[in-house]
Amino acid sequence: MKRYPSLFFLFSLLISTSGFGQQTAFQWQQIAPGVWKSVVGSSDGITPLAVAEIKPRLDGLQKLGEMPFPSLLSESVHEKADGKTLLRFPLQKGEQLFGLGLNFKSVQQRGTIKTLHVDHYNGKDNGRTHAPVPFYVSSLGYGVLVNSARYITVYAGTGVLAEGSNTPPEMNRNSQRNWNAQPYSDAVDMVIPAAGTEVYVFAGRTPMEVVQRYNLYCGGGTLPPKWGLGFTHRTPTLFTDKQILNEVAEFEAKGYPLSFVGLEPGWQSHSYPNSFVWDSTRFPHPDQFLKQLATKNIRSNLWINPYVSSHSPIFKDVLPYTGTHTVWVGRVPDFNLAPARKLYKDLFSKQHLSIGVSGYKVDEVDGYDNWLWPDVAKFPSGIGAEQIRQIYGLQFQKMTDGWFREMNQRTYGLVRGSNAGSPSLPYVIYNDYYDHRDFITALCTSSFAGVLWTPEARTSKTSEEWLRRMQTVCFSPMAMLNAWADGTKPWSFSDVAEDVKAVMRLRMQLLPYLYTTFAQYHFEGKPPIRAMNLVEGFSFDDKATTAQLNSTDNPYAMAVKQDIKDQFMVGDYLLVAPLFAGETSRKVVLPSGNWYDFYTGKLAGKGEVIEIKPGLANIPVFVKEGGIIPMIPFQLHTPTGTEKSPLQIRYYGTTEASWNLYDDDGTTFDYERGKYTWTRLDVKKDKKGQLTGSWIAPKDPAFHYTNATWEFMTR
Amino acid sequence: MKRYPSLFFLFSLLISTSGFGQQTAFQWQQIAPGVWKSVVGSSDGITPLAVAEIKPRLDGLQKLGEMPFPSLLSESVHEKADGKTLLRFPLQKGEQLFGLGLNFKSVQQRGTIKTLHVDHYNGKDNGRTHAPVPFYVSSLGYGVLVNSARYITVYAGTGVLAEGSNTPPEMNRNSQRNWNAQPYSDAVDMVIPAAGTEVYVFAGRTPMEVVQRYNLYCGGGTLPPKWGLGFTHRTPTLFTDKQILNEVAEFEAKGYPLSFVGLEPGWQSHSYPNSFVWDSTRFPHPDQFLKQLATKNIRSNLWINPYVSSHSPIFKDVLPYTGTHTVWVGRVPDFNLAPARKLYKDLFSKQHLSIGVSGYKVDEVDGYDNWLWPDVAKFPSGIGAEQIRQIYGLQFQKMTDGWFREMNQRTYGLVRGSNAGSPSLPYVIYNDYYDHRDFITALCTSSFAGVLWTPEARTSKTSEEWLRRMQTVCFSPMAMLNAWADGTKPWSFSDVAEDVKAVMRLRMQLLPYLYTTFAQYHFEGKPPIRAMNLVEGFSFDDKATTAQLNSTDNPYAMAVKQDIKDQFMVGDYLLVAPLFAGETSRKVVLPSGNWYDFYTGKLAGKGEVIEIKPGLANIPVFVKEGGIIPMIPFQLHTPTGTEKSPLQIRYYGTTEASWNLYDDDGTTFDYERGKYTWTRLDVKKDKKGQLTGSWIAPKDPAFHYTNATWEFMTR
Repeated sequence: MKRYPSLFFLFSLLISTSGFGQQTAFQWQQIAPGVWKSVVGSSDGITPLAVAEIKPRLDGLQKLGEMPFPSLLSESVHEKADGKTLLRFPLQKGEQLFGLGLNFKSVQQRGTIKTLHVDHYNGKDNGRTHAPVPFYVSSLGYGVLVNSARYITVYAGTGVLAEGSNTPPEMNRNSQRNWNAQPYSDAVDMVIPAAGTEVYVFAGRTPMEVVQRYNLYCGGGTLPPKWGLGFTHRTPTLFTDKQILNEVAEFEAKGYPLSFVGLEPGWQSHSYPNSFVWDSTRFPHPDQFLKQLATKNIRSNLWINPYVSSHSPIFKDVLPYTGTHTVWVGRVPDFNLAPARKLYKDLFSKQHLSIGVSGYKVDEVDGYDNWLWPDVAKFPSGIGAEQIRQIYGLQFQKMTDGWFREMNQRTYGLVRGSNAGSPSLPYVIYNDYYDHRDFITALCTSSFAGVLWTPEARTSKTSEEWLRRMQTVCFSPMAMLNAWADGTKPWSFSDVAEDVKAVMRLRMQLLPYLYTTFAQYHFEGKPPIRAMNLVEGFSFDDKATTAQLNSTDNPYAMAVKQDIKDQFMVGDYLLVAPLFAGETSRKVVLPSGNWYDFYTGKLAGKGEVIEIKPGLANIPVFVKEGGIIPMIPFQLHTPTGTEKSPLQIRYYGTTEASWNLYDDDGTTFDYERGKYTWTRLDVKKDKKGQLTGSWIAPKDPAFHYTNATWEFMTR
Repeated sequence: MKRYPSLFFLFSLLISTSGFGQQTAFQWQQIAPGVWKSVVGSSDGITPLAVAEIKPRLDGLQKLGEMPFPSLLSESVHEKADGKTLLRFPLQKGEQLFGLGLNFKSVQQRGTIKTLHVDHYNGKDNGRTHAPVPFYVSSLGYGVLVNSARYITVYAGTGVLAEGSNTPPEMNRNSQRNWNAQPYSDAVDMVIPAAGTEVYVFAGRTPMEVVQRYNLYCGGGTLPPKWGLGFTHRTPTLFTDKQILNEVAEFEAKGYPLSFVGLEPGWQSHSYPNSFVWDSTRFPHPDQFLKQLATKNIRSNLWINPYVSSHSPIFKDVLPYTGTHTVWVGRVPDFNLAPARKLYKDLFSKQHLSIGVSGYKVDEVDGYDNWLWPDVAKFPSGIGAEQIRQIYGLQFQKMTDGWFREMNQRTYGLVRGSNAGSPSLPYVIYNDYYDHRDFITALCTSSFAGVLWTPEARTSKTSEEWLRRMQTVCFSPMAMLNAWADGTKPWSFSDVAEDVKAVMRLRMQLLPYLYTTFAQYHFEGKPPIRAMNLVEGFSFDDKATTAQLNSTDNPYAMAVKQDIKDQFMVGDYLLVAPLFAGETSRKVVLPSGNWYDFYTGKLAGKGEVIEIKPGLANIPVFVKEGGIIPMIPFQLHTPTGTEKSPLQIRYYGTTEASWNLYDDDGTTFDYERGKYTWTRLDVKKDKKGQLTGSWIAPKDPAFHYTNATWEFMTR
C-alpha cells in the first residue's frame, strides 16, 4: 500500500474572523486511498471507531483506488465556542444528503436537524435512534464521519448565514406565493459538546463508492455464517427445553424452514437483571438440549441484556467495575475496564459458548431512556455517562464477536444499540417500534449507516398484515419471527399459511445469492440491503412539491420532499417493493435499464415509475437486466458445512452478463486467511443468438455446489 | 421586611466521595420568607430570572409567612463532572411532582425525563416546549427552580442508584408478576451543561403555596387590562382596514362580543421577515383605523416576529447588533444589547404604540427548530446561541411590557416562547399544535409553570368540535378565535352558532369573577387556571394500574399512571370539565365538599367521581360549596374605564361564605401604587336560616359596580 506523508496538509490554514469567532480550516491527513482524517482540538479518548477497534480493509480500499480530496469540502471550517466544538461543511445547490444513522421516516436528510443520541426509536427522525451514526453521504460523492461518542447536534442544511455567499434573497410572505418556510441553506453545521473531535472524509465517484469506503475503512461488512441467513424463530419467553424441541419438530413436520432458534429471557434463572446462567427447571441439561438442536442442524441464540443480577456467579467480582446507577436494579458493567470484560468472557464462555450457543440477542443497550442509567451516572473508568451511553451497544458487540472469533466460529446476533465503526460486527439491529412501513424505510437507511436492520415479525392484526410482514422479513438481513410474547407461528394465520411458507422457502433457496451479497459487503463494502439512492441509474428528483397552507395541519405550508423509502435493493439485482396491509397496488420506481418480474421473468419496465397490482401471494420483486440469481433446492435447514447442493441459476434479461458467486466454509474465519472462492457465472450468446450459461466450478473440495442448471426467465 | 443574615448556611458542608465523584451539599441562603437560593459553581451571567428582571412581591411573600427550609431537600447535592454541573434532589415514597414547564400530555411528572429546550411542542412531553421552565413542585410542599438558560436534562425520579438507601429490591421478570419496568427512584437528577447555576427552593404548606411563592418571587402574576379578558378575534392575514372594520361590525350586528382584534402578518409591508411598518395599501391610515376601532371600544393586537427585514427602517442601524444566522433570511437582533432594544422601542413606539396599538402577538420565538438559528450561531453580545434560544421569547416579553408600562398602559399579548421568571409578564402562550385534548392538559400544566396558555380555536372538522373548542376557549386566560388562515367566524358552523354565542356571552358576563381571579394571581400568586392538584381537598391516587404485556404496543408492560388532566379550575370556585368531539359523557373528579352544577345550582356530587352526560349546548362547569360568582349583564365589549355595571352575584351552596371582589381602573398600572379596592361579598344566614347576600360598595368613585342582585342557585 502506498505510504502517505505523515502529515499532509491539503489546504493551508485559513483563519476567518467573521461571525464573531475564529473559524479555522481543517488540516486533512490522508490515511488510506480516498480517506482523510483531521483532528480538531483535543479529541476525546474514547470514540466509536476506537471502541470498535476497526481494522481498515486496505485491499478493498486500494481496489477502489486513489481519489483527490473532495474539493467541495475544502472550505469546511471548525471553531471552539462556549466549551463546544463547532463544525461547518459546505453544501451545493441540488446536493442531497443521506445517512445520519438508522432513520425510520426519511432517507434524504438534507434540511433536517438531529441530536444524535443512542435511544430506542420513538417515532421521530430526531437523532434518537438505535444507531445514530454521525456519518453522512452526499449525492455529490463524499462522506463525512465525526468520530465522537457525544450527543452531536447536526443541522443538515438548515442554518442560513446572514452574510454568506449563498444566502438566498429575502422574501415577503404577504405578497410572494413562492415564499419558503425553509430558505436555502448552504452548509451542514454541527455542535459537538466537547473540546474536540476526529473528523473523517471519504471520497467516491458515487454515493455507493463513499459507502464502500466507509464500510471498508471500518473493516468491511460482516460476513454471517450461512446458518445466519436462514430463518430464525424466537420462542416464547418461558418455554422449556422440551417445548422448544417440540416447536422445532413442528416446524419440520409442517415443512417450514428453520436455521436457528432464539431463547428469550426465560432461559436464565434470573432476568431483568440477568444471572447469565441457565434456569435449572426449564433447562436442566442445556448441553444436551443444544446437542439435540445441533443434530437437527439448528443453531441457538440467547437473549440477554448486559445488566447483572445479584444472583449471577460473577456479581461479587464484577461489582468494583460497575457504575453508580442501575438498570432494573441490575449493575451496569463498565466494559472499558479489562476485568469486567474478562469476567463476562469467562462466564459466557463456560455457560454458553463451550456448550454450543451460537450467538446473542443483546437487548436494551439503546435506552428507552427511562430505564437506562441517567447521564449523572459515574463509571469506574472515569468515562462520562454520555459517552458510555453512545458506545455501550457497540462495545458489547465487539466484545462478544471477539469470543466467537477466538473459537474461529462466526456468530450472527441481534442488538439494539450501535454507532460508527459497526459494519464488521456480526449484529443486526431490531426494536419494538413495529411500524411495518417505517421498518422498510429503516432497511433503506441502514445502508448509509454501516448497520444491518431486521423488520422482524411478531404478530399482526390480520392475516394480510401477517403475510406482508413475513414477506419483507424474508428479504432482510435476518429473517426472523419473534414470538417471545405472543407465541405466533408462521402458520398462525391459516388462510395465508401456505403463502408464508412459500416466501420462507424462497428465502432458503436464495442462499447462494444472499451469501454472495454479504461477501460483497465484506470484501467490497457494498451493503447487502441498499437504498435506491445507492443504485446507479436511479435518479429521483428531490424537488419539493409545494404544499397547501392549512392553519391546523401545516401552518407554514411546508413543502413535501419526494423520498423513495418503500422499496430497496437486495444485492446487485433484486429490487423489492413490499406491500403493506390494506394496499392492493403501489408505485415502483425502476432505475434506468430493463427490469423483469422475478417470478415470471417478464419485462416490467425500464427507467420508469410503474403501477403494480401484485395480488397477495407474492411480494413484488424485480430483477435488473443481466440479473444472475443463483439458488439451491429448498431445504428445511441451511446446509451444513460439508453438505453440497446443485445450483439452480435463474437469468433475467436478454443481454450477455456475468457475475461472481462467492463461497467458503460458511462457518469459520478461514476466509480471512484466503480460504474462499469466487466463481464466475457467465451468460453468453451462442452463434444463433441464444443465451447460454456456463461456469467452471472451482477445484476446491470445500466448494458447496455441484452441477448447475440454468433457467432463462426472460423469453 | 425581616432581614436575613447575608449568608445563612442551613446545613454544614457535606462531602461525599461515593459515586466516583465529589458530591457537595448546597449552601442555602434565605432570600425571602420561604425562599432560598444557592449558587453552584460559576453561574452563567445570563439567566431567565435576570432577563425577566423579576421584582419579588415581598408583601405577598410576607403574608404567606416564614417557613423552615424544606427538610426533605437537606440531602440535596451537586457536583462537577465532564464540564457539566450535576444536581441531585431526594424524593420520598408517594411524593408526586408537577411542573417542568408547559406540558401537553401529562400533569404528573415523576418518572419522566426531559431536556428542557425552548421549541415548538411536537407531540411528546420531552422538554421541548414553548415554556420549558426548570421548576418543579412537590406534592409534599416545596419547589425547586434551576435558574439557568441552558438545555437542562432532568431525570424526575428515574435514576436508581446501585447503593442508595432506597434502592428497591431486585426482581426476576421470569417469575415475579409484579416486576416493574420502572423501579423505584428516590431522586430528581439534573445535568446542566455549564460550569454552574443558581438554584432556588420555595417552601409551602401545600403545592399551591409553593406555586404562590414562586409566582410572588417572580413579581406576582400579570394582571391583564379588563379588555384582555373579553373576546378576541384574529382576522385573516391579508385583510385590509376596511375588511377588519366590516368584520367588527358583523360581530356587533350578530350579537357576538368582541374586545380586541388581532392583525396578522398582512398589516406589515413585509413579513417573514418583518418591516414592522404598516402596509400602505391595506392600511393607508393606520391611526384613523385604530381610532375607528377605539370608538367601538375595540383594542388591537399586532402579529410580529422579531426578525427584521431589509425593508424595515431600522435595518441598517440594527445590523451591528444582529447574529450570524438568519430566520427566514431576516436578521436576528441580539436584545442583550441596549442599542438593539432602543431601535425596536423607537420604531414600535412611533409606528404602533403612539397611535393606539394595544399589544403584540410575538410569533416564532420558540423554534420549530428548523427555522430558528442553529446553535452554531454567534451573537454580538458574546452570549451563546443556546442561551439566546432559551431566553429570546422571555426577553421580548419583558422589553415590550416595558414600553407599555412607561405609558402607564397595560398590554396583554400572545407569545410562543417563555421561560422562568415569566409570571408577571402580560403574555399568553399559544401554538400550532391544535390537539384539543392536549390543549386542556396544557391549561392544567401552565399553573405549575408560571405561564398562561390559550387553547385558541382556528377551525374544526365538525360543528360539534367547533362548539367544544369555543367552549373551552371561553374558560381560558385568553378567549380567542384565530382566523388568520381560515377566516372562520364564531357563527361559521350555523347549527351551533347560538350555543357558541351563549358561551362567548357568558365569558363576558364573568368579567368580575375573572378579573378578581387574575388579581389573586397578581397579589397572592395563585394562578387563574389551576390544575386539580393545586386544589385543596383534591386527592387522587397516582398508583399505577398494572398494564397488559403486549409485544407490539407495550413490550415492557408499562403501568399507566392515573393523571387528571382533562378538567381544571378557573379561580377559586369554578371546576371546568370540557367535552371533546365525539364524546357524549365523561367522568369528573370532584374534590371533597359539595359541588354544584353551574347552570342549575343542583348538587352534582361531593368528593367523588361522577359520570355526566351534559348534552352539547353547555360546557360542564361545577361550583364549589360556598361559591360566590360575581357577574355583570352581557355587553358586546368589555366595559370602558368609566362605564359602570350592576353586579349579578350567583351563590352556590347552603353554607355561609364570603369572597373578596377586586377592582381597579382596569387599564393602567395605578394599582401598583395602591389604587385598587377589595370588596367583601358576604353570604350569611338570617334568623330563619335563609341565606342572604350583602356587601358594602367601596366609596371609590372609580369602582365599576353599582347595585348588586343576589341569586341563590342552590335551593
